[in-house]
Amino acid sequence: MKNEASAILLISCPDRQGLVCAVTDFLMRHNGNIIDLEQHVDTEERVFFMRLEWELNGFALPRDQISEKFSLIASRFEMKYELHFSDYKPRLAIFVSKFPHCMLDLLARQSSGDLNAEIPLIISNHTDLEPAARMHGIDFHCIPVSKDNKAAQEAKQMELIKQYNIDVIVLARYMQVLSDNFCRNYPNRIINIHHSFLPAFVGAKPYHSAHQRGVKIVGATSHYVTGDLDEGPIIEQEVMRVTHRDSVESLIRKGRDLEKLVLARAVWAHLQNKVLVYKNRTVVFG
Amino acid sequence: MKNEASAILLISCPDRQGLVCAVTDFLMRHNGNIIDLEQHVDTEERVFFMRLEWELNGFALPRDQISEKFSLIASRFEMKYELHFSDYKPRLAIFVSKFPHCMLDLLARQSSGDLNAEIPLIISNHTDLEPAARMHGIDFHCIPVSKDNKAAQEAKQMELIKQYNIDVIVLARYMQVLSDNFCRNYPNRIINIHHSFLPAFVGAKPYHSAHQRGVKIVGATSHYVTGDLDEGPIIEQEVMRVTHRDSVESLIRKGRDLEKLVLARAVWAHLQNKVLVYKNRTVVFG
Amino acid sequence: MKNEASAILLISCPDRQGLVCAVTDFLMRHNGNIIDLEQHVDTEERVFFMRLEWELNGFALPRDQISEKFSLIASRFEMKYELHFSDYKPRLAIFVSKFPHCMLDLLARQSSGDLNAEIPLIISNHTDLEPAARMHGIDFHCIPVSKDNKAAQEAKQMELIKQYNIDVIVLARYMQVLSDNFCRNYPNRIINIHHSFLPAFVGAKPYHSAHQRGVKIVGATSHYVTGDLDEGPIIEQEVMRVTHRDSVESLIRKGRDLEKLVLARAVWAHLQNKVLVYKNRTVVFG
Amino acid sequence: MKNEASAILLISCPDRQGLVCAVTDFLMRHNGNIIDLEQHVDTEERVFFMRLEWELNGFALPRDQISEKFSLIASRFEMKYELHFSDYKPRLAIFVSKFPHCMLDLLARQSSGDLNAEIPLIISNHTDLEPAARMHGIDFHCIPVSKDNKAAQEAKQMELIKQYNIDVIVLARYMQVLSDNFCRNYPNRIINIHHSFLPAFVGAKPYHSAHQRGVKIVGATSHYVTGDLDEGPIIEQEVMRVTHRDSVESLIRKGRDLEKLVLARAVWAHLQNKVLVYKNRTVVFG
Repeated sequence: MKNEASAILLISCPDRQGLVCAVTDFLMRHNGNIIDLEQHVDTEERVFFMRLEWELNGFALPRDQISEKFSLIASRFEMKYELHFSDYKPRLAIFVSKFPHCMLDLLARQSSGDLNAEIPLIISNHTDLEPAARMHGIDFHCIPVSKDNKAAQEAKQMELIKQYNIDVIVLARYMQVLSDNFCRNYPNRIINIHHSFLPAFVGAKPYHSAHQRGVKIVGATSHYVTGDLDEGPIIEQEVMRVTHRDSVESLIRKGRDLEKLVLARAVWAHLQNKVLVYKNRTVVFG
Repeated sequence: MKNEASAILLISCPDRQGLVCAVTDFLMRHNGNIIDLEQHVDTEERVFFMRLEWELNGFALPRDQISEKFSLIASRFEMKYELHFSDYKPRLAIFVSKFPHCMLDLLARQSSGDLNAEIPLIISNHTDLEPAARMHGIDFHCIPVSKDNKAAQEAKQMELIKQYNIDVIVLARYMQVLSDNFCRNYPNRIINIHHSFLPAFVGAKPYHSAHQRGVKIVGATSHYVTGDLDEGPIIEQEVMRVTHRDSVESLIRKGRDLEKLVLARAVWAHLQNKVLVYKNRTVVFG
Repeated sequence: MKNEASAILLISCPDRQGLVCAVTDFLMRHNGNIIDLEQHVDTEERVFFMRLEWELNGFALPRDQISEKFSLIASRFEMKYELHFSDYKPRLAIFVSKFPHCMLDLLARQSSGDLNAEIPLIISNHTDLEPAARMHGIDFHCIPVSKDNKAAQEAKQMELIKQYNIDVIVLARYMQVLSDNFCRNYPNRIINIHHSFLPAFVGAKPYHSAHQRGVKIVGATSHYVTGDLDEGPIIEQEVMRVTHRDSVESLIRKGRDLEKLVLARAVWAHLQNKVLVYKNRTVVFG
Repeated sequence: MKNEASAILLISCPDRQGLVCAVTDFLMRHNGNIIDLEQHVDTEERVFFMRLEWELNGFALPRDQISEKFSLIASRFEMKYELHFSDYKPRLAIFVSKFPHCMLDLLARQSSGDLNAEIPLIISNHTDLEPAARMHGIDFHCIPVSKDNKAAQEAKQMELIKQYNIDVIVLARYMQVLSDNFCRNYPNRIINIHHSFLPAFVGAKPYHSAHQRGVKIVGATSHYVTGDLDEGPIIEQEVMRVTHRDSVESLIRKGRDLEKLVLARAVWAHLQNKVLVYKNRTVVFG
């Protein structure tokens, strides 16, 4: 079943009666077979969210007419929506600095078919990981960034992103802060991994701060990047227990496993079109 | 919002097109405001599951007509369904032996309003916990069970369950095996806590077996009771890490916290009408 | 074995060669049978920590001479040390406000023998939990605290603590900030439960803040109380996953289980004399 | 500090007085500076375990005399012991079949310096992973195994293990059962990853069994391999929550992350000489 292509609608709108009925009625009228339906109502904000996946096989509308037809319902209910197809492979760019673990983990997942994505481009401010990128047959561009050349270098990055038709940018322990301007160009399309349990220990050297504070659990957080450092909408978090025996080095070593796992889960959820953003929070369907 | 009464439908039926549409259309036609909707399709078994909760306030049908009206849809789609109202307080009987922790935890939750339930009856095969029951103002019946008197004593238990109008039986570390006959009388209405991560370590003394096997994690499992010991549908499980330093006594001590937590979560999910059983498995909505 | 009384030494000192040897030699010379030995060296700070437990049965020194004899070794190595006996039952005072769950959990543990402690005193700034305290046969004192009467009321509290010979004060969701003066009187003897994963969400209403920030995991933290609010040495933390489906009310409900568990574990570790404090951090032996 | 070489003693013997004292006295007499000391007493079995790590820099005995000198103490206390040096890089052979994830994870860890080991040899019963092995510059030998040729093919494997001076064999989802004879040749030196929370779901297709049973948590287990399939001493386990929404395919996908993590932790603990085996259980120091 998963081998057959499916269509996915991600919907959000003001909550009111008849939403589920209207959407499922639309599908039924065109002979759509629902594979998965999830909805959520934020009762405080009175916002309705829905993810709907149905088989394209047997669906009465051709792909290129679905959005047009659905827009009638959407406008009636003031819906924002995205339409995706499961057989499209999104194109990822990975941004790295010197730490290889997150990048290598994503590449291993991609090569073994775990990620439904292409990875044609790796950008770094250092050359350390160029051999690993080349070994995997991926184009590697070194674009060193300093205070003085940031705007110009980000322009180069954006040019590459355009040239490679990149859909999603993954910051796999990229140790540069992106400018507001850069972030605004890719809303909810830049995924970062921060090596702490946000909002604890924002900023640099979170493992040092965690050790200093004597916490008994450390974590990692993956979030969409906005202009506010470490403040973007959280997609996924995970933690592990530590003890007084863990030095800063030990936290860093163990933390790498958290970082890999949390980033991979966040990227996977994004690629499955399971994430909706509102009010700096996310709805992540199961 | 939660203060207002709501109605809950739990539905299962063979999967086919139009199910969500038909059910939500039914609600809309009677002006029902959906609070929560969850559905699940077991694609292997081709079975559809749904939990639907809507506000009674403003709903066009009086309570006693909902089931009758809905049965028309139900029969069209071969649905099995249950209808519940959030302001009904189910009545629990707790079965215990000598260990107090699960019982005391449930009573504390009940007294602080965490459980939407009445607890009018405690049954035990020992008298040890009678003072604690009385302290909480709950009727306590000691019904000792032996191989020879089991049928007769279970008859007394069933008589009390009837007399007290019990909806759900919670085995809070009750150290007797219930007969097939007893179990069949309360399908999916007897909730047990087993002190291991099932299916590992079925039967007696699971902490001893876990210690013997040298596992690094121990668990607890709450499940509906069937005639097959420790084989009923699992509602909830939880685990905790242990080390070589943990003796059997230490596992037993730490395990009590797991047992309390897992049983309480399972009872809570059941009382919220979030659990559906099929093929000896459960769907537990979020 | 655990039934027999044991002695416990908690030691900290500057790290240097021969420490373990000197201490274990002292025991051996007096025919001490070691039950448990744990040591830790903070290699950055060059501090040595040790917990040593041995059987009193067969030990050549009477209890009242152990400290005197050991002080010779202690002074040679500049050791700070505490000597405890496992058959002494520390006396706890519980401070509460209106939420009963942590208090009831501790009382249930105490009554079933899980806590090696007496609980003769409960102090509250409200009368809500007086009936529960009385039901358990524990003296309850209502001492309302306002901005204006704080010093006077804390004086009453300290008088009661003295009168009841209290060893440890447990703040079981006590919603008042203790003064610097009060805290300084009981260093490392006041244990608090904070309903967040510190240092995230210090201060009031952490579940609201967690919901607002959209975290995917919430936690609870137990720590010794110092004059700096929510900044004392952390003893224990635990977390649980949440989703976009969890409202603030749901976080509060689920969080209660974390709070109970984390506070109970911290109190247990303290009562087992397994906690050492230094530089606002703790060593918690296993 | 970790950069300097250290020596590690792993000791087990019948428990009696004076063990810690005797061992630490030995170190002190030769001017040994203890970096880490952990001990454990199994009070039921009356067995003593110890791991002792000290700096070689400044130690009065040359490496090749340590064992000889220590053997005097060892024989007095009937100790079994191993002596290791932290700057020796153990040599690993990885056995694989068709699933790449565990192998790729170990290779990524090795290449980024996370594993203190050489990996000169990969053996598989299939050719699928040969390109990945070659890409990492590691010798790959395909040795297909069938019922009929098992003894002969295992002889070839053992010959390679000898030829490459292999210290540890890691079964990274190797889908063949090793013979008793093979296992006996490498006691506590073959590390396997089993894709379930042992002892639940031994044997083939554990994810299918887990799905069938309807468990709410799945796990993975790393253990030393003995002649009894899936019955060897457990080194490490980890689990993750699943729901009714997880199909068998979803369990398999999520489980890969568990398998990678658990195997890597077990290999790491073994390589740090932190694991002691007795009575089919392990002591894993922290």
